[in-house]
Amino acid sequence: MSEPPKHEHVERPFELERLIFFSDAVFAIAITLLAIELRVPELPVQTSDALLQAVLAEWPRFLAFAVGFWLVALYWTIHHRYFRYIVEYDGGLIRLNLLILFFVALMPFSTSVLGEYGNITAGIWFYCANIALLGMSFAWLWHDAAANHRLVSPDLDNTFIRYMTVRALITPLTALLVFGLSFVVGAFANFAWFFIFLFQGIARRHYHE
Amino acid sequence: MSEPPKHEHVERPFELERLIFFSDAVFAIAITLLAIELRVPELPVQTSDALLQAVLAEWPRFLAFAVGFWLVALYWTIHHRYFRYIVEYDGGLIRLNLLILFFVALMPFSTSVLGEYGNITAGIWFYCANIALLGMSFAWLWHDAAANHRLVSPDLDNTFIRYMTVRALITPLTALLVFGLSFVVGAFANFAWFFIFLFQGIARRHYHE
Amino acid sequence: MSEPPKHEHVERPFELERLIFFSDAVFAIAITLLAIELRVPELPVQTSDALLQAVLAEWPRFLAFAVGFWLVALYWTIHHRYFRYIVEYDGGLIRLNLLILFFVALMPFSTSVLGEYGNITAGIWFYCANIALLGMSFAWLWHDAAANHRLVSPDLDNTFIRYMTVRALITPLTALLVFGLSFVVGAFANFAWFFIFLFQGIARRHYHE
Amino acid sequence: MSEPPKHEHVERPFELERLIFFSDAVFAIAITLLAIELRVPELPVQTSDALLQAVLAEWPRFLAFAVGFWLVALYWTIHHRYFRYIVEYDGGLIRLNLLILFFVALMPFSTSVLGEYGNITAGIWFYCANIALLGMSFAWLWHDAAANHRLVSPDLDNTFIRYMTVRALITPLTALLVFGLSFVVGAFANFAWFFIFLFQGIARRHYHE
Repeated sequence: MSEPPKHEHVERPFELERLIFFSDAVFAIAITLLAIELRVPELPVQTSDALLQAVLAEWPRFLAFAVGFWLVALYWTIHHRYFRYIVEYDGGLIRLNLLILFFVALMPFSTSVLGEYGNITAGIWFYCANIALLGMSFAWLWHDAAANHRLVSPDLDNTFIRYMTVRALITPLTALLVFGLSFVVGAFANFAWFFIFLFQGIARRHYHE
Repeated sequence: MSEPPKHEHVERPFELERLIFFSDAVFAIAITLLAIELRVPELPVQTSDALLQAVLAEWPRFLAFAVGFWLVALYWTIHHRYFRYIVEYDGGLIRLNLLILFFVALMPFSTSVLGEYGNITAGIWFYCANIALLGMSFAWLWHDAAANHRLVSPDLDNTFIRYMTVRALITPLTALLVFGLSFVVGAFANFAWFFIFLFQGIARRHYHE
Repeated sequence: MSEPPKHEHVERPFELERLIFFSDAVFAIAITLLAIELRVPELPVQTSDALLQAVLAEWPRFLAFAVGFWLVALYWTIHHRYFRYIVEYDGGLIRLNLLILFFVALMPFSTSVLGEYGNITAGIWFYCANIALLGMSFAWLWHDAAANHRLVSPDLDNTFIRYMTVRALITPLTALLVFGLSFVVGAFANFAWFFIFLFQGIARRHYHE
Repeated sequence: MSEPPKHEHVERPFELERLIFFSDAVFAIAITLLAIELRVPELPVQTSDALLQAVLAEWPRFLAFAVGFWLVALYWTIHHRYFRYIVEYDGGLIRLNLLILFFVALMPFSTSVLGEYGNITAGIWFYCANIALLGMSFAWLWHDAAANHRLVSPDLDNTFIRYMTVRALITPLTALLVFGLSFVVGAFANFAWFFIFLFQGIARRHYHE
């Protein structure tokens, strides 16, 4: 079969834009659906006290929503950043991007599990797994695109490429840490998510960003 | 680490567009999900009278939906307006914009609480808090972007910048008023949301828009 | 207050695009949420016969979904068409467009009511009301934009402008017909929605499109 | 009625973009909603063992989600590909595209049926029907657009056009196979979905892509 005609090359920037657009839409839907798990409580008596107590009793879900929102937003920011430098695309990039979106689409579910069973050790594992797989998909996509400057601009700095890989891997590493800690301290392991801040600060300093 | 290559500057307008696009998607999803809380009533008997009564009995949810739709739409309009003047972006703007989206994503939940428990004083508080925090995030973002013309066009009028700040703060101020009134008049405080119209009219006149 | 700076004029096409984009997103979410009301049935026994019977028993919901999808799609097409000719925008257009989106966002709810209670006369009324208000908002927006060529290209044909108004009003008129028939023939009135096809054919012929 | 003015032609590329955008949004919402059917299990006792067992017991839903995500993603990729070559549009294309979106919007429902009743023979049929109709709509749209190069670039290779038709039809053919096998091997027929990989490999080789 002969090659598709040359007008394809004219369309290319639009194509990449469509891929980004589709990803943005999935990110936006997933991040908004995180809040759907927050349920209006059923009240035994219709008083202000009963409502306040019932809403306060939902704090693990609020926390899970807040952490989930923050992590999905973080990855959206990284996606944003990656595709600032990716200037070409191929079937492999589309597939790896779909792998990323698969784990993004799972986030509302695993956030719900965390919100409901964050007090149980195993309730944290599913969340860790989702986050770890999401981060590793990001690292994979970036490696696929940036190694040997395959799909990025040829003048993109190698140190910068490495820094972007590190950024994607910080979260899976933190997930591993949370997972390990869950055996020792149980639900308190969730607080270790905040190490992401620390690790990113270190990475930022190391790479002089 | 050396700076990312110069093609980044070429990409910049697209980047800002992507940020706006992502925000629009979150606004669109949140505003449409507001209606998901309207539930098809269960009928004891399958008659027209029973259905009409059951639908009419849901009026607090319809009202909460209508008010919620109107407020999210109002903020979408303000977002629209802000980003007409913001011509640059940085990490801070992205983060403040994500803070805004966090409170937008919470709106379906707090609208549900209002729809379910708007007759209880505390049912109004959560809604007030959400609206207040949303408005303050807007004011923060605008201040961050427009003060000293950091991210806006250098020839943007200072009076206009102040007017845009005032517009964002009108709603939190009204939320404070509703909150205060809820102690005095209970659920009737909800009618004070309409003061937004009045305040905006005053601001519009004051700034000769 | 002096006018915002001139770069605003440069941005204008993008602004209109953002309005269209936001509308498309709300249309897309509402049309996809229509299907969320289709519920997986609970089976008394786990056999193929039981499942087939249970799914077939849901036919009113499938029909309501199909009709709802078709009507939202129809209005999306009209929106598409309107904004092909609207080249300017102002606050009024934004507000009327939000009014349209309000009734679009209500469609999943009223489609659910129709799917659940389409056999009751009053179950049809809510749907009729939603469709009628949606269509009238469209006609209002188009009148606001196209009358005196306020926001459309000055060389847009007057006959064409009238034709586009007629298109928006066909559905409210059909809704009125369905409403009237519901008193006479009950749930069978739903079949009158198909008159939309007939009326549009007549309009198309009359305006030689 | 005279023809709409000439500025329409200027707008045309944007129009097609809007059609694509709307489709992307529906695909994105449908693919993300697939995960909404994954439900946080209710636990009899709050232990790690109980949670792990409950989550593992949900494997048919996870499998249905994964297969559904993969198939919707596959069709999104095909849509992506088709519209790389479609350079014109008309009412027919819009309608056929809406037909596609109708079956896309149904996917969350039929994926839920599969997840819930994939062990029952009839539970597979609904899914097969949805997939088959989706694929046939794709083939129809492509035939409508590409036959005689009606809406595609005149220099688009005929062999390539045929290859794109084959790609759309592979999935309906596999659905037919799964349907037939379901009578013989029951729920195991679901494994035949993986034949899509094989068939696509054969098609790719045959057309030397």
